[in-house]
This record gives sequence, C-alpha cells and structure tokens, in this order.
Amino acid sequence: MKLVRFGAAGQEKPGLIDSNGRIRDLSGIVPDIGGDVLTPQGLARIAAADPASLPLAPEGVRLGSCIARPGNFIAVGLNYADHAAETNNPIPEEPVLFNKAPNCVVGPNDDVMIPKGSLKLDWEVELVIVIDARARYVDEKDALKHVAGYAVCNDVSERHFQIERAGQWTKGKGSETFGPLGPWLVTTDEMPDTSALGMWLEVNGERVQNGSTKTMIFNVATLVSYISQFMVLDPGDAITTGTPPGVGLGFKPPRYLKAGDVMRLGIDGLGEQQQTVVPFKL
Amino acid sequence: MKLVRFGAAGQEKPGLIDSNGRIRDLSGIVPDIGGDVLTPQGLARIAAADPASLPLAPEGVRLGSCIARPGNFIAVGLNYADHAAETNNPIPEEPVLFNKAPNCVVGPNDDVMIPKGSLKLDWEVELVIVIDARARYVDEKDALKHVAGYAVCNDVSERHFQIERAGQWTKGKGSETFGPLGPWLVTTDEMPDTSALGMWLEVNGERVQNGSTKTMIFNVATLVSYISQFMVLDPGDAITTGTPPGVGLGFKPPRYLKAGDVMRLGIDGLGEQQQTVVPFKL
Repeated sequence: MKLVRFGAAGQEKPGLIDSNGRIRDLSGIVPDIGGDVLTPQGLARIAAADPASLPLAPEGVRLGSCIARPGNFIAVGLNYADHAAETNNPIPEEPVLFNKAPNCVVGPNDDVMIPKGSLKLDWEVELVIVIDARARYVDEKDALKHVAGYAVCNDVSERHFQIERAGQWTKGKGSETFGPLGPWLVTTDEMPDTSALGMWLEVNGERVQNGSTKTMIFNVATLVSYISQFMVLDPGDAITTGTPPGVGLGFKPPRYLKAGDVMRLGIDGLGEQQQTVVPFKL
Repeated sequence: MKLVRFGAAGQEKPGLIDSNGRIRDLSGIVPDIGGDVLTPQGLARIAAADPASLPLAPEGVRLGSCIARPGNFIAVGLNYADHAAETNNPIPEEPVLFNKAPNCVVGPNDDVMIPKGSLKLDWEVELVIVIDARARYVDEKDALKHVAGYAVCNDVSERHFQIERAGQWTKGKGSETFGPLGPWLVTTDEMPDTSALGMWLEVNGERVQNGSTKTMIFNVATLVSYISQFMVLDPGDAITTGTPPGVGLGFKPPRYLKAGDVMRLGIDGLGEQQQTVVPFKL
C-alpha cells in the first residue's frame, strides 16, 4: 500500500493511493497515519478496506508528511562509504546515531525555511524506515517484522549549527521544516527489498546526488536490530538511514542553499519530493 | 501546583498533590499530564479545580513519570563548570545539546535496568524544564513564559555506549528506564526561581553528588531561548539541563552501577526519587 496524509498543515487526513494513482480518504477507517495506527493491526484494518468504496480526496490537495509526528526521529550518519569519504570522515565501524526533532517533519513539497543565523544549509536524500511493532533487542533476522514501510526523507541539515556550534549534530538537524517526509509511506508488502534502490537529488535542475542503497554500509535489518540494542523502537518511530555522496558540504568549494533554490529528490518506488527554499520569517 | 501521574505503568492517571500531601485524581478534569494538557489553558483548567472535591488516589500507589512521554526529550551536556572539569571537557562556549529517547521516561521510583552489553552505567541528578507554550526563536526575557514547571530527572547514562561506541552521545542516553522523571511536576507559580536549588544524589546511602543550580553555566531562560533558535519547542517537551559534579565517570578510578545498587536523588522543592538497579532481562 501507499499511505499518505493530505490536507492543510496540522489538519491532515489519512489516505491511500488507489490503483489509478488517486488519493482515497481513509478517515472513516483510521484517525491518522501515526503510532496508534502504524501497527500490524492498524495496517490490516486499512488493507481490508476496498479503495473504490472510499471517498476521493480533492484534486491537487496538499500532501503532509506521510506519517504523523514520530515518537522518535532517529538518524544514521555516514552510512554510505562514499559520503563518509566526501565529508572527510572514516567509515564508521558501527552505525553513528543522532536525532532530528520529531516536530520538524513536514510535507514532501512544503517550503524549507532557512533558519535564523543559518550559514550553511544543505540537502540529503535518504531512505526512511517506519516502525510498526515495538522493537527491543531484536535480532537481524527478525528486524524486518518490525518495519511498516519506507519513505523518502530530505534530511535537511545546517552544517554551521551541526559542526561549528559546540558538540553533537542534533543542533543542525531539527530546525522547523528540516524533515520533509513522503510523498507516500510504501508498506513492506509492496517493497520487500530495499537493497538496490536508486536515489537522487537535484538543486535547480542540476543532479547533485546520484546514488543507490547498494552502497549503504549498514542495511535496514542491521540498523533496526542495532538501534534496538540502545533504545526501544515504538510504532510510528522513524529512522532516516543516511545519504549517498553529493551533499553541499562535499563540493569543493562547498555549495549551500539560498532562498529561491528548488530541491527535487526521489528514491525508486518511493516517489518524489520538491521543496523551495524560503527566507527566515518569524 | 504539584502534578503527578499515578497507577500501573502504561495506565497512569493524572493527579495533583493536595495541601495535605495526598494525591487527588484529576482524571475527571484532564485526560493526562501531557502535551495536550501542558498548555496555559490546560493548566488553568487544573488550577480551577477544588482539590478537596477530587477523589483521593489509593494509598501507596505507584507514581509514573510526572509527565506523559514528551514529544522531544532534549538534554544539555556539560552545563556545570565543575562537572565539565571532572569529565576532562572544556567549559562549553554555548550549550551542548543531545537527545534522550522520549520513551525512556519512567516513574521516579521505578527500577533502572542495566542494558544488554552495558559496561559503564552511571547516574546524573538533573533539573528538568517542561514546556507549556510553543517556543520558536524566543528571547531570553520571554523564555520563562513558555515553561510549565520543573521536575527532577535522573539522566541515567551508559558511558561505554555514549563515548566508546562510534560518535554522538544519544546512543548512551536513551535505553529503556534511562529517564526517571518526578515525583512531581512543580509549576512555575510555585517555583518562580530556580537559580539556587540544592541537588544531590546518593548511591547505596553514600552522597556522591552534592551541588546547586547556582553553578549552572547556562540558566533556564538562556537554555529555552537558545534551544528555540535551533528547533521548535512544543507543549510537553522536556529539557534536562545538565548535572553537577560527582558522576561515576568523574571518580578516580571511575565507579559504575551494578545490579542491586540503590540511587536516591533530589532537588530542593522538587522532591526525591529512588531507583534500584536491576539486571538486564528481555
């Protein structure tokens, strides 16, 4: 299934994409696409519905983040060997974890706002894992049983905040609008294998990232298992799994985003996003 | 007001402490002490209730975390000059931020479980700030208007995970049971000033931390204002503000917790906690 959330920001309704690519309104079946619904039972309730019987969403309606605000928004750093190299970091021996603020998730085509004081705004196309069953010390062989599905994330990053403003990356990863998610949450029945998905990002029409999950150092099952050794993963939690080469920080000299720039990004089977960079406003 | 959550884990009801120190059941007034209620409006609804008219909670009932699972659980590192020194870190020029997993919050007297693979389990008595109004690029002079109140937190930490397992502290800060919060959320009307609160922690009856918020480098207003420059703070979010000297990592040689150890900790006006360290179990 391809699940979405549609409508005005903060008032999104749950929906699914029917076989004709139209959005069907799920709000008669489930209240939202969030932790309470992102369980095997909740997803079964959606799967049991006949899409043709559900109301159509209005044409051209805005898409919100494909999942409601996650309980935890975990990110994996330096998870592509060639990206680690471009940022002058060694290949990590085990996954590097940090956090994005859960309330930074926005729709896939919403504007990305330059934060106040920003000097180095950057992009990162990433595969997101969404959890649907509590994961606590899970073995790799069982890890995928805890995954609801996958989506595209732009792990928007402010490198000055992340690297030059006193310790710990989280400071440059959670500003308002820094987590476009979607367009869809593609459930695992429709995407059983994430091992060779092409992924790309363009800035103003120029292809800057062009990679594949083939070059991930730690794959989905490894990450879910690994993270579950350090914290409990709950339904609706999101894990963004790292980016391939081609981020602004990796250019020589580095290239950063400015107001008016347009990012377009996508992953095979998971759809596309497009964001315009807008100036800071209170 | 002193707000609590009481009852079995996962089924806590909201309550408040009456003038005789007894718990009154607030579940007829508000559904929980969480983000939806931790707003100026929600707190006003509680304040308008006559405690004597509310049902008494059962004697000796378990206390849960004094707030429901926060939307974001932010932590400040190295925020006491003397603690920075004991961990061989320079005094930070601006606050160091990291994250605890929001689902690691537990009751103030619940057991703390040694995670699988743990080598260096440590304690940290800390003052927690709880947010009650969205904070977005807030000035220091307005910052306290966004604060619901304060509580005690034991920022339980696994130093091997935090420091020796590949980058970023979050890995050693969010294991199950690593966030005892409470006993009470003390609202700002009852605690307008947090600038000189004594704080202490004992392990098996031996006083190991003995400090005061007087030696905080960045105070509550500064932290709320500062963090709001990097991410939006929402009602129900929690910020744990750093620990004074005396953590296990600071001893020479270091001292870490083992199964059966008992931690007791408190902050002036915010009450006390007591946790027993228990072995890992699936």
